[in-house]
Parts: sequence; structure tokens; C-alpha cells
Amino acid sequence: MNKVALKEDERIDDLQNGYEIIQNKKKFCFGIDAVLLSDFAKIKKTDKVVDLCTGTGIIPILLYSRNKGKEICGMEIQEECSEMAQRSLELNGISDKIKIYNKDIKEALDIFPKASFNAITCNPPYMIDSHGLTNENKGIAIARHEIACTLEDVIRVSSDLLKINGKLFMVHRPFRLPEIMSTLIKYKLEPKTMQLVYPHVNKEPNMVLIEAMKGAKPRLKVLEPLIVYEEDGNYTKRILEIYGKQ
Amino acid sequence: MNKVALKEDERIDDLQNGYEIIQNKKKFCFGIDAVLLSDFAKIKKTDKVVDLCTGTGIIPILLYSRNKGKEICGMEIQEECSEMAQRSLELNGISDKIKIYNKDIKEALDIFPKASFNAITCNPPYMIDSHGLTNENKGIAIARHEIACTLEDVIRVSSDLLKINGKLFMVHRPFRLPEIMSTLIKYKLEPKTMQLVYPHVNKEPNMVLIEAMKGAKPRLKVLEPLIVYEEDGNYTKRILEIYGKQ
Repeated sequence: MNKVALKEDERIDDLQNGYEIIQNKKKFCFGIDAVLLSDFAKIKKTDKVVDLCTGTGIIPILLYSRNKGKEICGMEIQEECSEMAQRSLELNGISDKIKIYNKDIKEALDIFPKASFNAITCNPPYMIDSHGLTNENKGIAIARHEIACTLEDVIRVSSDLLKINGKLFMVHRPFRLPEIMSTLIKYKLEPKTMQLVYPHVNKEPNMVLIEAMKGAKPRLKVLEPLIVYEEDGNYTKRILEIYGKQ
Repeated sequence: MNKVALKEDERIDDLQNGYEIIQNKKKFCFGIDAVLLSDFAKIKKTDKVVDLCTGTGIIPILLYSRNKGKEICGMEIQEECSEMAQRSLELNGISDKIKIYNKDIKEALDIFPKASFNAITCNPPYMIDSHGLTNENKGIAIARHEIACTLEDVIRVSSDLLKINGKLFMVHRPFRLPEIMSTLIKYKLEPKTMQLVYPHVNKEPNMVLIEAMKGAKPRLKVLEPLIVYEEDGNYTKRILEIYGKQ
């Protein structure tokens, strides 16, 4: 690994796949969402891919480590996250393989032509409201709440950037499914695959993975339930498999 | 039980709850869909309810047996089914409790005022196309394929018939979820609860139960997975509970 400077509260986490990532334990740490989305995303070796709202760049790094995509880039509005992502690329010696743009996704068409990507990934802010937010945690708030971009922004921009038959892979919260589906349809991104992630077999799901295809015909394939924990609290075999592939 | 005449190929099935239903083994037999929907539907004792596409009347009978609804009626376009439903009511001595209309649901506003129901149930035809249909099985085809009414018809009519905050409970196929959600939203029926029915814990779901509320705010509650069979092929405890309540 290359040497990079760490700032206060930062640490380097081993992704157990030959790659590492810089995290900030008080601010930006990736969750299982990013890992599941990277596994769920069916991206070819030859695809040109952008990860919207990339944060500290976990998804581009995981896609790269899984040999998904030929050209991979990420866009992140927050300078602090974007700069951390850049240092993680340097740490891994892959800053010539993945490009990070510190840019508002709503301005994506300033740098990319319309219909120029085969695939898009996105782990966007989940929450609609901004209750209880303070200045102290503005960075976290932007990552979690729809302050800098909304679900509709993500979907509209994805529709602009994708070629016909290009695919958007997104992870989100199940409580917003009706809005997700109707907004995808509004922007000609037809939902084609969906998987609900249930923490336990007898619990409500807390994540949904969605694949939508630009200009496709309607017909959704709903996959088997993705269950995270066994009754004894250990990860299920499927989750261990997904983590093992990182 | 009262005595009623049976026609060719008809038989009487015991619902194991004090009620019986006339079925036609070659044509119209209810499935687990109707049982799950009757259980899923949160209908109050004081509610005025209509079951659209009622077929041989299984859902009105199950709702009545579960003490759901004050006034219950059903609408069915096919004369043969509708007449079987009527005889089942007579068989059970409840033809004064449930009214069956042999009518196209698209003409529902000819007999009911707008916004006059608290709740609607519907187990509509699931299939879009009409491949391989012959004259021999036209009755079955109308029950299964969108020949006499479409998903949009069901949703539009439901929206017309429901009061504000009234609820539509529907069972359908997961592959049509995007269309279901976007059409519900189009007609101001906000999806509020959804449950996917998986035949086995590691299989794709083959049914979806949806509750939508007229004029409600967006926020979907997705329930725990409803799994039908254990690995050994027996019904799960939850399914046995639901059948036990019939």
C-alpha cells in the first residue's frame, strides 16, 4: 500500500480483499448498504460506470476490486468526503483507475455527455426530512438527508446519463418504494429487479436493492429475501458469501 | 346448512370455519391468494365493504366469517360465477348478509354512489396477455387474464368508490409491482402496507399483498416476509395460523 497522510479521527480499514479505505469514525463510515449494492450491481467488465453520491468512494473501490466496470468514476458534493475518497485511491495505488469528481450530481451534464454511461450505482441520502439537524453534524446530515439532492434528482440525473438499456443500481429504504417506483417510471427507468433485505427472517425489511433499465419494457423480477442475520445473531451464509467476495 | 342444487362438476367444500363454498373443480376454485387477502385486509366491524372481481364469493364469505365488515357485497362480471356465489350464500344461510352483483366493475358507479365504501378487497386477474386462450376455457381466462378488466380499471373504480381514508386491499403478482404502485399513486390511493409472499425462504415471491389508502400521505410499511412452506414441505406456523382463523 502507498503511504497517505491521515487527518484527525481518521483511520484506515482493511476491506479484506487487498484494498483499504480511509474512514472517519466520527463522520463517514460505510455500511452494509454499500457492500450489498456492490454485490447486487450486475456490471460488465466493459461498462462505463459512475457512482453518484459516492461519499468516501467505497462503492467505486468495491466495484473495482470485483472487476466490475472498465471506466469507473464517482461524484460527491462534499469536499471533505471527496478528498478522503481521493486519498483512499492513492493509498490503494488506483488513482489512475478511478476518478472522483467533487461536484453536485445536479451538474453532472456539465462534465459528461447525455447517454454516456452503461451503468450507475447510487447509495443516496435516505431521509426526507431534516429534523433535529445541527451545524455540528452537517456533513453527516448531507450524507443521510435530502439536503443537497433528492431522490428525484438522483433518478433524473441517472436517466440523463444512461444509454438506452443502461442500468441504475440503487439501495434505499423500503418505506419510500412507491415514490421510488413511480419516479423511476416517470424518467423512463423501468424497475427490472428488486430484492428486499430483511435483518431477520421474521422482521420488516430495512433496505431495498433496485435495478432499473433505461427504456426497458415493464416486468419486475423480485428476488428471494436477502436475510442478514440467523436467529443466533450470526451472519447468514449468503451475507458471509457477499462479504467474502469483497 | 341449507340445501342447494349442485350442477355438473360442482362440489361443496368445507371452509373449516362453519361455512362452506360451492366450487367447480374444472373451472372455479379459490386459491391461497383469497385466504391470505382475507387475513391481510384490516377491515373494521363497522365498515361497508365491496369485493371486486369476487368470483364464486370466497372473499365475502371469509370476511363475514372473520367478522370483518358490517355491510359486505361482491361484484362479478361472469354470470356463472356470480350465480355460484349466490348459491353458496344460500347454502350458508347468509344471503341476507352478503349481496352479490352480477355486474362489470367498470359500471360500479351505476349502482353505488361515489365515495361510499370504507374498504375494498380485490383478487383481480393477474395476467396481462391472453396467449394460448381458447373458447373452451373462456371462463377461466376471464378470471385469470385482463380480458374483462385491467389493473387500471380495478384501481380507478376503487378510487371512485372509496371514501377519503378508505382502504383498498389487493393481492397480485410481484412482477407487476411498479405498475401497481404507480397506478395507485395516479388515482390518489397511497400504498401504505405491503407484504411479499415467498413460497420458500430461499425462493422468489409469487404473491404480493398491498394496502392502499385514499388520500393518505406517502410512507409504506413493508412487513416481514410471509413464507408459505417450511423446508420439509409442510406449511409454516404463520400459514397454519391464517388457515386456522378461517
